Amino acid sequence: GADSEILYTGLRITEDACEAYASVSPTDIRQSCLTPPPGSEIISSFYGNMADAAKTAQQPQPVGRGEKAGAEFGYVGVDSVLEQMRRKAMKQGFELNIMAVGQSGLGKSTLINTLFKSKVSRRSVKPDDEERIPKTIEIKSISHDIEEKGVRMKLTVIDTPGFGDQINNENCWQPIMKFINEQYEQYLQEEININRKKRIPDTRVHCCIYFIPPTGHCLRPIDIEFMRHLSKVVNIVPIIAKADTLTLEERDFFRQKIKEDLRANEIEVYPQKEFDEDAEDRVINDNIREKIPFAVVGSDQEYQVNGKRLLGRRTRWGTVEVENTAHCEFAYLRDLLIRTHMQNLKDITSSIHYEVYRVRRLNEDSTQTHDEEDGHPAVQANGIPAHDVLSHEM
Amino acid sequence: GADSEILYTGLRITEDACEAYASVSPTDIRQSCLTPPPGSEIISSFYGNMADAAKTAQQPQPVGRGEKAGAEFGYVGVDSVLEQMRRKAMKQGFELNIMAVGQSGLGKSTLINTLFKSKVSRRSVKPDDEERIPKTIEIKSISHDIEEKGVRMKLTVIDTPGFGDQINNENCWQPIMKFINEQYEQYLQEEININRKKRIPDTRVHCCIYFIPPTGHCLRPIDIEFMRHLSKVVNIVPIIAKADTLTLEERDFFRQKIKEDLRANEIEVYPQKEFDEDAEDRVINDNIREKIPFAVVGSDQEYQVNGKRLLGRRTRWGTVEVENTAHCEFAYLRDLLIRTHMQNLKDITSSIHYEVYRVRRLNEDSTQTHDEEDGHPAVQANGIPAHDVLSHEM
Repeated sequence: GADSEILYTGLRITEDACEAYASVSPTDIRQSCLTPPPGSEIISSFYGNMADAAKTAQQPQPVGRGEKAGAEFGYVGVDSVLEQMRRKAMKQGFELNIMAVGQSGLGKSTLINTLFKSKVSRRSVKPDDEERIPKTIEIKSISHDIEEKGVRMKLTVIDTPGFGDQINNENCWQPIMKFINEQYEQYLQEEININRKKRIPDTRVHCCIYFIPPTGHCLRPIDIEFMRHLSKVVNIVPIIAKADTLTLEERDFFRQKIKEDLRANEIEVYPQKEFDEDAEDRVINDNIREKIPFAVVGSDQEYQVNGKRLLGRRTRWGTVEVENTAHCEFAYLRDLLIRTHMQNLKDITSSIHYEVYRVRRLNEDSTQTHDEEDGHPAVQANGIPAHDVLSHEM
Repeated sequence: GADSEILYTGLRITEDACEAYASVSPTDIRQSCLTPPPGSEIISSFYGNMADAAKTAQQPQPVGRGEKAGAEFGYVGVDSVLEQMRRKAMKQGFELNIMAVGQSGLGKSTLINTLFKSKVSRRSVKPDDEERIPKTIEIKSISHDIEEKGVRMKLTVIDTPGFGDQINNENCWQPIMKFINEQYEQYLQEEININRKKRIPDTRVHCCIYFIPPTGHCLRPIDIEFMRHLSKVVNIVPIIAKADTLTLEERDFFRQKIKEDLRANEIEVYPQKEFDEDAEDRVINDNIREKIPFAVVGSDQEYQVNGKRLLGRRTRWGTVEVENTAHCEFAYLRDLLIRTHMQNLKDITSSIHYEVYRVRRLNEDSTQTHDEEDGHPAVQANGIPAHDVLSHEM
């Protein structure tokens, strides 16, 4: 029979997931699979014959006319979707938005430049300028298109000069919270717009590196206040800045103290335990959580040590190699932010922090418009009323 | 100077894309880059020194303690986001929803099973059953979890038995249009829900394979009517079914005739010209558009030809090898649907067809609710009133 029903799969098919929504039941399928078609000319079948199939596939095969070399019997090509996805991502490029927060003099720009091995962040106070610290917090974004091994990325570095530099630093986390929420608001407005862009520009802050001064004691009230508020809306990666001023023992002591302070104040920094996706994730992230906050040293200066080029800080008593994990934990920070968790930082921003903002905003809207007589539907373009984004703190 | 400002990039940085939003101007940055820090101990710098850097990077380097082997000076790791994306996709798996439309007896189930080399579609009329063709169009979905080389995919095959099988086939495209729109509606409702799922289940039809009977003449009115209506809401891939009944000359003639009919009726089948993204896309897709509709033969029966296992149809005068492009164009269809354009089929569904539906629905809503006294905002959960999805034809 031409249409006789035989399962001759080269794929793994999970049978229990085989759902039928209409009159077809899984039992039906299994039955028809097991019934050999009477009088058919079929020589062999993949069904129940996987070992044979594997054997045949491994033998060198003559390549027939009009057939591609290496075509395996039973191969479908489902896995090629990965290559299609990769090509699309290469074409589109990536976006990453990193914010650096910490008082002046902690080497924020230098560290960001060390991370990306290029001048992507600019010191706001130039050494040869008259020292001028802004009276209020300014928020500055600089974007660069960077490319490595054919992968393009729009990197935006958000600097917050003035944070923690005043005599009275009360509520200095607020302008930063406001900025972060404004990016969520922009994204939301674009997302609910009737005629929306094919790809919504993503200005949401994917990661906030918080620079802790290397006091060696414990977190200061301003550190706690900032992280307590901001960890609810953004991925916070705290680091011990300029760690070359601390001995290894001092670093360990300081790290343990900071961990205690974070716990005591119920501050959840990135990677947050509750967002681990599976056991594998948990093992990897537990290891990172153990080492956090990383004690780092940044440098944009290159030295030659034993004939090797490296970034470091040379002193009379030796050279700190910033990418050497025996000297400091910069390499761990770089791996986390770029080489292993970049995608996850963006995913958590989008699926957790942004969603929390969105739920709050839409609930707020539906409450407000209920009371109004002429309530325009909020999905309409620009239909959401102006509001104070600061109120979106958790 | 510890923080002296030098660009020492190993990446390619596009300078003209370097934007500054606040007080920093690009000129500022370039200037500070070009100013060498006075009295610094820096031996060499990446900036303006790329040729040297490349040379050094290629030489074998001694690997220092605490440094990873193969770590290149100047390497950041931006490209590793691809691997992160791949890992995430492997974990999550993919979804693909394929619909088969065509009158009974054209081998729809066999072809779908040939595509996935497994029993993913079930004949609705069993040969040994009493022949019974449904009086109305039924729409049946069967889902399978399939896996190949570690890539998991939830494949849903949507069958439409009864289409074109009645005495009077007027408007028999309507239930199919309705089904497709219902999937968009479900997605929309989930998307605008306040508390929405982290990942919206995608039941949208990514591709509709339309089976043209191998008459060798031209398109029938029912073919034209179906494709004219449906090509506006879904990716249509028309194929000449059971092409083994046509000689090569007959196939070519028929294909040209079908092309003319499509043009004359302004039917845009997949891949649609207007959605080509760049010149490269256009070249690839022009080649596909040239060959469309593919004349295909399906088979779920395996034969041994010259010691090689293959799927085919054996007759007294020879064996049609379905995956041999000298015999039929099944392999082109498989490549299009699975190996080269699967991701694109999903992208066009999501960014074009779904968006068209969404814009129409939201505009409709805002018109309706304007007239109402107690207009709930439509973003609210379940805030969108019930309506006739059939009205969403373009």
